[in-house]
Amino acid sequence: MADLESQSPRESRRSGRRATGSAEVAPARSLAYRRLTNPFQPQTVFSADQIASIHATSLRVLEDLGVKVLLPEARAIFKAAGALVDEDTLMVRIGQDIVQQALATAPKSFWGRAGNRDRDVSFAHGALNFIAGCGAPNVTDTVRGRRPGSLADYADIVRLTQHFDVLHMQGPFVEPQDIPTHLRHYAMTRAQLTLSDKFPFVYARGTAQVLDGFEMIRLAHGLTQEEFEAEPHTYTVINTNSPRQLDLPMSQGIIDFARAGQISIITPFCLAGAMAPITVAGALTLQHAEALSGLTLAQLSRKGAPVVYGSFSSNVDMKSGAPLFGTPEHMKATIGTGQLARYIGLPWRAGGGSASNTPDVQAAQENGLAVWGSVLAGATVLIHAAGWLEGGLSVSLEKLITDVDVLQSIAEMCTPTPGDEAAIAYAAIEDVQPGGHFFATEHTMARYRTAFYQPLVTDATNFGTWTEAGSLTATERARGLWQSILRDFQPPVGLAACAELIDPFIALRTAEGGAPLLA
Amino acid sequence: MADLESQSPRESRRSGRRATGSAEVAPARSLAYRRLTNPFQPQTVFSADQIASIHATSLRVLEDLGVKVLLPEARAIFKAAGALVDEDTLMVRIGQDIVQQALATAPKSFWGRAGNRDRDVSFAHGALNFIAGCGAPNVTDTVRGRRPGSLADYADIVRLTQHFDVLHMQGPFVEPQDIPTHLRHYAMTRAQLTLSDKFPFVYARGTAQVLDGFEMIRLAHGLTQEEFEAEPHTYTVINTNSPRQLDLPMSQGIIDFARAGQISIITPFCLAGAMAPITVAGALTLQHAEALSGLTLAQLSRKGAPVVYGSFSSNVDMKSGAPLFGTPEHMKATIGTGQLARYIGLPWRAGGGSASNTPDVQAAQENGLAVWGSVLAGATVLIHAAGWLEGGLSVSLEKLITDVDVLQSIAEMCTPTPGDEAAIAYAAIEDVQPGGHFFATEHTMARYRTAFYQPLVTDATNFGTWTEAGSLTATERARGLWQSILRDFQPPVGLAACAELIDPFIALRTAEGGAPLLA
Repeated sequence: MADLESQSPRESRRSGRRATGSAEVAPARSLAYRRLTNPFQPQTVFSADQIASIHATSLRVLEDLGVKVLLPEARAIFKAAGALVDEDTLMVRIGQDIVQQALATAPKSFWGRAGNRDRDVSFAHGALNFIAGCGAPNVTDTVRGRRPGSLADYADIVRLTQHFDVLHMQGPFVEPQDIPTHLRHYAMTRAQLTLSDKFPFVYARGTAQVLDGFEMIRLAHGLTQEEFEAEPHTYTVINTNSPRQLDLPMSQGIIDFARAGQISIITPFCLAGAMAPITVAGALTLQHAEALSGLTLAQLSRKGAPVVYGSFSSNVDMKSGAPLFGTPEHMKATIGTGQLARYIGLPWRAGGGSASNTPDVQAAQENGLAVWGSVLAGATVLIHAAGWLEGGLSVSLEKLITDVDVLQSIAEMCTPTPGDEAAIAYAAIEDVQPGGHFFATEHTMARYRTAFYQPLVTDATNFGTWTEAGSLTATERARGLWQSILRDFQPPVGLAACAELIDPFIALRTAEGGAPLLA
Repeated sequence: MADLESQSPRESRRSGRRATGSAEVAPARSLAYRRLTNPFQPQTVFSADQIASIHATSLRVLEDLGVKVLLPEARAIFKAAGALVDEDTLMVRIGQDIVQQALATAPKSFWGRAGNRDRDVSFAHGALNFIAGCGAPNVTDTVRGRRPGSLADYADIVRLTQHFDVLHMQGPFVEPQDIPTHLRHYAMTRAQLTLSDKFPFVYARGTAQVLDGFEMIRLAHGLTQEEFEAEPHTYTVINTNSPRQLDLPMSQGIIDFARAGQISIITPFCLAGAMAPITVAGALTLQHAEALSGLTLAQLSRKGAPVVYGSFSSNVDMKSGAPLFGTPEHMKATIGTGQLARYIGLPWRAGGGSASNTPDVQAAQENGLAVWGSVLAGATVLIHAAGWLEGGLSVSLEKLITDVDVLQSIAEMCTPTPGDEAAIAYAAIEDVQPGGHFFATEHTMARYRTAFYQPLVTDATNFGTWTEAGSLTATERARGLWQSILRDFQPPVGLAACAELIDPFIALRTAEGGAPLLA
C-alpha cells in the first residue's frame, strides 16, 4: 500500500502555532488538529511471552475449533484457500499457515483519502484519529429530549464533526429512521459528501448498498473506477458475532470492501463474562481469533486489502449482564490489544464509550477512562470518542461537545512544548520582583493570545458571578455551543457541486427501487 | 533515611485478589488499595538537555536573583551557610554549591509512619498516593448546599478518607471555621487521630501550633520524642509566594518540620501567565527555583530532613486571570515536573483540581485530566485528587465520591493482569459454541464474584428502567453513598484510647490559652 513518507499529504501538520518570536501581537491560537501523532509511549499489561501465547492460542482456536461463517461465498473463499469447511455446521477451520499468509499481505499502514487532501487520514502506528459516537438508533439533547434518530439529526452530527478539526472521520452516528432502509444509505452518504470534506463511512449492509456508496464517493470526488480502487476512499466497521461467528452482512462487507480496496475495521465486540471469557486475556484471545478470521477473509478476497484491527472488548456488570465502558478491565483489554496489534504490525482501533443514560459525571468519567486507555494503548483510531451514551443506544449533542473538549486537550498534548532559552524565560523571571506579577511582561505580551488552549465550555468565574448568571452546568453551556455551531454552519466551499454530481445517480437508483438491506 | 526494602511494612500489598484457582465460590472482591505502584512508564514533554537547562537556569535564578525570605531566622540560617543576604530588601541569594549540597543530603525515599503500620505511606519514585481536596474554606453537598466549613464537616471528610483505601493520607480538607484559630489545630489533629489510622497532616501555622500537633501525634501513637523524630509521622504542605518569596509561616514551617524530622511538601503555586512566566518551561523554571530554595532551607535546618518536591503549576484563563486546572498546559507542566523530580531524584507531589463551581461534567473532566497528567508524570503523591471545586474554595462530598471512582479505576490498573494459560482460557472458548455465551461456564463461575471492579455509582440499567427510577444522575447517586458511609462509619478499633491520651493535653493547652496563628 501507500508509502507514508512519499505520499504524505501536501499540507502536513501546521507548525509554529505557539508564537515563540518577539511579535508584538501574536496571531490568534489555531485549533489545527488534523494530523495528530500520539505523544505517549504505548503501555503494556502483558509480557511479550504472554502476548505471543495469546496470539498462538488464537491461531489454535481458528485451526482446531473454527469460526461459523454464514455466507456461502465466504465459506467458498476459505475453502479455496485450504480451510476445512463443514457445510452442515457452517464451521470453517482455518489453518495457521493461511492466517500467517494473510498477515503477511495485510498492509502495515495506508492513507484514507478524504474529499480534501488536507483531511486525509493516516492509518499507521503512532497516528491518532478520533470519531464521534456511532451506530446509535437514538439521538438526545437537552432541548428536544431523547428520540429516534432522523436524517436531520444525522446531518447535524455530520456538521458538528466537520466543524471540529479533532474529529477526523465521518461515521454512522445516528440511524436516520425516517428514511426507509432501501434508500437510507443514499441519504447518509449524500449528507457526508455535501456537508463535509472528511473521510466518509459506508455501512456494510449488503453488496448493492455498498456499491451504491462507493459509486457516490467516486462521483463526488471525481475519480475513475481505477483511481477509486487504487487507494482507500471510505471505510466500514465489521462486527463479528462473538463467540466465533461471521454473519451474512459482515462477511459480505469484508469481501466487498476488500475487492474494492476499501478499509474494513474488523471489530469483535467481546464482552468479558458474557460473549467472551471473563478474563481479560481470554476475551482478547477470542477477539484476536475473530479479528484474524475477518482479516484473513479480506486478504483472501484481495491480497493487500487495507484492514484495521479492531478491539471493543470490555466487561459486563455481573449483576445485570449490562455492558460497561471505561472500566479498569476495559482499559486493560485496550492496552493488551495495543500489544497484540503491534505484535502483528497492523493499525488498529479502540474507542470511548459510556453506559450512562444521561450526559452526567458517570458519562464523562467512563468516556474519559476509555479514551485515556485507548490513547495510552497507542490506538490508531478511536471510535465513539465523543457523545456516545447508553452503551450506544443514543448520541448526545451536549456530550459530544464536552467530550470534544477532552479530545482537544489530548490533541494539545500532541503539540511540542517549547523548552528553548526563550521559553525558559530567565529574563522574564528577572523582570518580575517578589510581590509582582507577569501579566504585563514583554514575555507574556508576546504570547498571551496563543499560549494556552481555550477550553470550549469551561466556566472559571467565581461562585457569586456564576450563581448570578444562572448556575449553568457545563452540559447546559454545551447546548449553546452546538446550537451556535449548527446555526452558523457553512459546508466547505465546493461541496455544492458534489450534490450536482451525485443527485442524478440517487434519482436513478431510487427510480430503480433503491437497494435492499442485507441483514 | 529508611531503607525501603528492609523496612517494608509487615503486610505488603495483598495478592491473590483475583481468584485464578478452581474454587467453586470465589471470595468477594477486595478493594485493597493501600500500597500502589504506578503501572505506567513516566512520560516526557522536554528533552534531557532541556531539563538540564531548566535546572541550571533555576540555580542561576537562586544565585543571581535570589529569593525574598520574610523570616529573620530563615535568613540567618541561609547566611550561616554562605548565602548572600540583604537585610534591607530581605533578598537571599543562594549559591549553587549550597543548593547542590542540600540536594545531596535530601533523602531519595522514606516512609511516612501512620497510626496503623499497614497504612504507612511510601514516598519513593514509583509509589502512588492519593489525597482528597485540601485547604478549602467551604464545603458543599447537594443536601445542605455550599457553606463555610465546620469541624463537623472536616470530621466527615476525615471519615470518608478513612473509609476509602485509595485515599492514602489525611489532610486539611476544609477549614473548621466554627473553631477559633488558636484552638483549631487541636480540633483538626484530634479528628484525624481519633477517627482514622491514616498518615496525619499538621498545618505550618507557626511553631507553637506545629509543636502542639507533633505532641498530639506522639502521644496518640505512644512514641518517645526520640522515636517520633527518628522517622516521619506527619507532613505539611509549604506553598511559596510566587514569584520568589518565602513568607513567615512557610519559612517557619520548613524549619520546624525539618528539625523534627517530619515531611515538608514544598509546593510553589506557579500560575503561568500570572505569578509565573507564561510558558510551561518558564513556569517550571520559577517553580524549580522556589522549591529548591525551600528544600535547601530544610536541609540547612537538619541534614537529611524528609522533603517532597512539589508542583502545582497550571495556567490562568487569559481573559479573566482565573486559575484553570486539568488544562493541557497543566498536564504538560506536571509531566515536565516529573522529569525535573527524577533529575534531582526526589519523591514529588502533583495533583488534581477543578475550577468549576459545581460537581458537573467540567469538574469531572478537569480533575480527570489533572489526575491522568499526574499519574503519567509519575507523581508520588496526588493532592486534591478528589472533591476539589472552585480552584480550591470548596470541597464537594458528591464529587469526592465520583472522583474516588476514577482513583479506584486507576488503582485497579496497578494490579497485575493474569496472562497465564488459565487466563487465556482456551478450554472455555472451546466450551462455548457460536451463538452461545460464557455466563455459565466453569471458567466464569470460578471467577465471577471477583473478576471485575464494581464502580461506586455507575448505573448500567436501560433508559426505561432508569427513567422509572427517577432519572438520577451519578452525582445524585453519590449523595446516597456518602450519606450511608457516614451513617455506618466506625473508627478503627483502638482509636478510642487515643482520645484518652490526647484529651488531657488539649485541655491543658486550652487552659494555657491555646497557640497563636502565625500568618
